[in-house]
Amino acid sequence: MKDVIIVGAGLAGLNAAHRLKKAGLSVMVIEARDRVGGRNFAHHLADGNILEMGGQWIGPTQTRMYELCEELGLETFPTYNEGKVLVYNDGKKSLMGSDKDALPKLNVFALLSLGRAMKKVEQLQEGLDLEKPWNHPNAEYLDGESLESWVRKHVRFKAAKDYFRLVSEAVFSTEAKDMSMLHFLFYLKSGGGIESLLNTDEGAQEDRIKGGTQQISIKLAERLGKDVVLNCPVHRIEQSENSIKIYSGIQVWEGKKGIVALPPTLAGRISYNPPLPGVRDQLTQRIPAGSVIKIQVVYESPFWRKLDLNGQVASFTGPVKVVLDNSLHNDSRGVLVMFMEANKGRQASEWTAKEREAKTIDSLVNFFGEEAKGYVEYIEKDWMNEEFTRGCYGGHFTPGVWTAFGKHLRKPIDHIHWAGSETSSVWNGYMEGAVRSGERAADEIIRLLKELI
Amino acid sequence: MKDVIIVGAGLAGLNAAHRLKKAGLSVMVIEARDRVGGRNFAHHLADGNILEMGGQWIGPTQTRMYELCEELGLETFPTYNEGKVLVYNDGKKSLMGSDKDALPKLNVFALLSLGRAMKKVEQLQEGLDLEKPWNHPNAEYLDGESLESWVRKHVRFKAAKDYFRLVSEAVFSTEAKDMSMLHFLFYLKSGGGIESLLNTDEGAQEDRIKGGTQQISIKLAERLGKDVVLNCPVHRIEQSENSIKIYSGIQVWEGKKGIVALPPTLAGRISYNPPLPGVRDQLTQRIPAGSVIKIQVVYESPFWRKLDLNGQVASFTGPVKVVLDNSLHNDSRGVLVMFMEANKGRQASEWTAKEREAKTIDSLVNFFGEEAKGYVEYIEKDWMNEEFTRGCYGGHFTPGVWTAFGKHLRKPIDHIHWAGSETSSVWNGYMEGAVRSGERAADEIIRLLKELI
Repeated sequence: MKDVIIVGAGLAGLNAAHRLKKAGLSVMVIEARDRVGGRNFAHHLADGNILEMGGQWIGPTQTRMYELCEELGLETFPTYNEGKVLVYNDGKKSLMGSDKDALPKLNVFALLSLGRAMKKVEQLQEGLDLEKPWNHPNAEYLDGESLESWVRKHVRFKAAKDYFRLVSEAVFSTEAKDMSMLHFLFYLKSGGGIESLLNTDEGAQEDRIKGGTQQISIKLAERLGKDVVLNCPVHRIEQSENSIKIYSGIQVWEGKKGIVALPPTLAGRISYNPPLPGVRDQLTQRIPAGSVIKIQVVYESPFWRKLDLNGQVASFTGPVKVVLDNSLHNDSRGVLVMFMEANKGRQASEWTAKEREAKTIDSLVNFFGEEAKGYVEYIEKDWMNEEFTRGCYGGHFTPGVWTAFGKHLRKPIDHIHWAGSETSSVWNGYMEGAVRSGERAADEIIRLLKELI
Repeated sequence: MKDVIIVGAGLAGLNAAHRLKKAGLSVMVIEARDRVGGRNFAHHLADGNILEMGGQWIGPTQTRMYELCEELGLETFPTYNEGKVLVYNDGKKSLMGSDKDALPKLNVFALLSLGRAMKKVEQLQEGLDLEKPWNHPNAEYLDGESLESWVRKHVRFKAAKDYFRLVSEAVFSTEAKDMSMLHFLFYLKSGGGIESLLNTDEGAQEDRIKGGTQQISIKLAERLGKDVVLNCPVHRIEQSENSIKIYSGIQVWEGKKGIVALPPTLAGRISYNPPLPGVRDQLTQRIPAGSVIKIQVVYESPFWRKLDLNGQVASFTGPVKVVLDNSLHNDSRGVLVMFMEANKGRQASEWTAKEREAKTIDSLVNFFGEEAKGYVEYIEKDWMNEEFTRGCYGGHFTPGVWTAFGKHLRKPIDHIHWAGSETSSVWNGYMEGAVRSGERAADEIIRLLKELI
C-alpha cells in the first residue's frame, strides 16, 4: 500500500512522483514500456551518441524544464540557427533572413491578407482564459469551426491560407480540418503565441539538452529507484471508498490515490471499476493524437552551413515539410531532423521503410541539392505505430469538444487524478506542459492527503 | 479451435455468426455483458410488458431487418402516427398536419432559406459514393467543414439554421459542431435521405417490433446455443500466422479468423498483438459515439391522442427536444418516448436521476399541458454511462476523418475483420446497418476460408 500509484513514467508521471516524494508521500510508478520517458526517446548511435526521436526542444518561459535540467545536472545548448531559412513551394526556393521573420515569402496581397488574419488570431486569443477556454466570449462560434473552415472564411489568399495549414501540420501534426478553431487559439496562447511556438531564437525550439531529453526521465527514475516498475501495461483500475487498485496482468498495486499520466486517448482504454462517468469517457473519445513520423538523416558534415543555410526548411510540398539542423553537440557530423506530419505522415505510415527513406532523400535533394544524397545514416520513428503512445506530438480537441467536455479534462474521478501534457493549461502539448501537469496533479493529492491527517 | 471467433453479441456479431454457421463454419461469439443485443435493450415492466430502451424502429428499405423478423417469427406493427406533430419553440407551439411535412413552421424567408439549403444538401449527396465518400468531388472542402460551419455559411435565417442543428441532435445525438459535413451527407444518403431518416410514415420510424428489437438478438443467440458466451469482456487479441486468439481475463478462444463487431471507439480499446497499424488505431480515436439518454414516461392512457396529437414533438428548447408516442401494442396505457441528446444529454448526464425526471416532466407539461404531470412510471437509460457501449445512437466522423482515414474503416488487419453499424455503407448507424455489416464481414471470411479449401 502506497500513498499514490502513478500510471505512466513519462515526464508528467515521473515529475508527479518526484514532487509527491518531496512532500513525504510514498509512490509507485507503473510503466507499460521497457523504458521511461514516454514521448522522449533517445536512439543510440554505434559510437554512443544519441539522436532524439521524440520531443527535444525547450525555449523561453518553459521555466519548469530549465529548473528540472538544473536540478538534475543537465546542460542545454542552443539549437543551430546561423544562416538563412529555406522556403520551398512547388519547386520554387526562397530564403528568409532569420526565423524571427516567421512569415514565408508571399506576394504583397497574400502578405496583407495573412497579416490581417494573424492580427485577428492574436485578438481572439485575448479573450481566452487558458483555464477555461469555453468561457471565451465567442467560444460557441469558434468551437463550431475547424481551423480550416475558419481560415477559408477569414483569410483571402491561397498562399496565406496555406501558411495556416502548414502551421497546423508543423505544430499539431494534424490537418487544419481536424481541429477546433477554439483549440488552435487555446494552444497558441498556451505556448505564448504563434511566434513563440514557431521560432528557434526566442521560441520553443531555442535550446536542446546535452545527452537528450530522455535523460530527465531516466534521472528522475533513478532517484525513484524501486518505486518505478517497467513492462507493466495497466489495463484496469478499481476504486473503493478509501483506496485504488491498479492492475497489470496479474500484478496489482494499491494506493490511497492514483494519477493517470497518459494521453487522453490511452487513458480512455483502461477499464475502470466503477466505470467512469459517461461524460469523462466521451471526452477521451474526442482528443485524438496527432500523426507524425520523425526522421533524422546523418551526414559526414553539415554541408548546408557552407551555403549560409541554417538547415531549416518550411516546405509547402511534402512529404517532408519541416526540417531543422539537429547536429550533435561538439561533433563534426551534420544531422538534419524532419517530420512527415498529418495526412503526409498518415500516408507515409503505410509505405515501406525503404520508400520513406527514398522519398525523404528526394525531399532533401530538392531543398539542399545533390549533396543531400551522400548521407551515412537514416533513422525514423513512427509515433502512430507506438502501442503506448499512438500518435504525437499530442492530442488535439476536435470541433465542439472544448465547449461540451472541456470542464472534465482535469476533474478528478474519486481517487483518480489526471496528468499528461494534454491536461496542461500552460505549454499544452509540450514537455513543459507535461511537467506542469504532473506538478498540478501531485499538488491536488498533497492537499487532499494533508487534509486527511 | 473454431473457424471464426466474434467479439460482440449485438446485431452485427450475431448476424455474422448466423451467416457463417449457415455457410458451414463453426463460430464462437464472445459478449462482455450478461445479455445479448448491444444497443437493443428491453426494460421489463412489472406486468411482463417491455419498454425499448435502445434502438427500436425500422422502416422502408431496411430489407434485412424485415427479412430477419420474418425468419425469426417476429411481427411488426406501425408506429402510432394519427394526429398532428407539435413544434415547440421558445414557449410557442404550432401544429403540423403530418410528419411528411418535415419542415417546422418558419416564416417565409426562413422557409425559403431552408428550402435552398435542403436542395443544396440533396445535390451534394448526388456525387457521393457510399463505399468511398472520400472520392466526392468536393470531399476536401466538405470534410474540412463541420455541419455547423457549413450551415453558418450556406443557410441564412436563424430558424433554418436551427433546423439543421435539431436534425444533428435528433439523428446523430451530437451537436452540429462535432461532425464533418461530409459525414452528414454520407449518413443522410446512407439512410435514403433526410426525409427517410426523419419520417415515421415511409421513414426510419415507420414500424416497431412486437416484443421489442432485442428479441432478434435473443432468438439468434438461442439458435447459436453454446456458441455464445456472456460476461466475457475481451481485452486482448493475439494473431499468429494461421490463427487468432481472443482473451477475456484468463479465458481464451482460438479461431482461424476473427470479427470485431464493436463500435470503433470500443474496438480501439482492445490490446492487439501484434499492435494494429498506426493508421487503423488513429481511425478509432476519431469516431466518437453520440450522447443520448433515452427516457420513457408511462401514462394510464395516451391522453394526447384526444387532443388530435400523434405524440410527436420537435422542440427547439431542451432538455427534451424529440418525443414520440411509444405506447405498447394492444395496451390501454400511453407511453411517450423522448431523448436528451448532444449537449443537453451531456449536461443531463451529470444531473441526479430525480432532476432528470423533474425536468422531463416539465418539458412534457410544456408540450402537452398539465395532464402530463399524471404519469405512472419514468424509465431512463443513459447510454454514455454504459461501459460496453459508451454512447448512442452511433459514432460520427469528426472533420477530416473520412478523407484521411476512411479507407481503413473496413480493411481487415490480417485475420481480423471489422463489423458494427458504423462500418456499414447502407443505413450506417441503424440496426439495418449493423445486420448488413455482419453479413459483409461474414462474407469476407467465407470467401477467404473457401479459398483455403
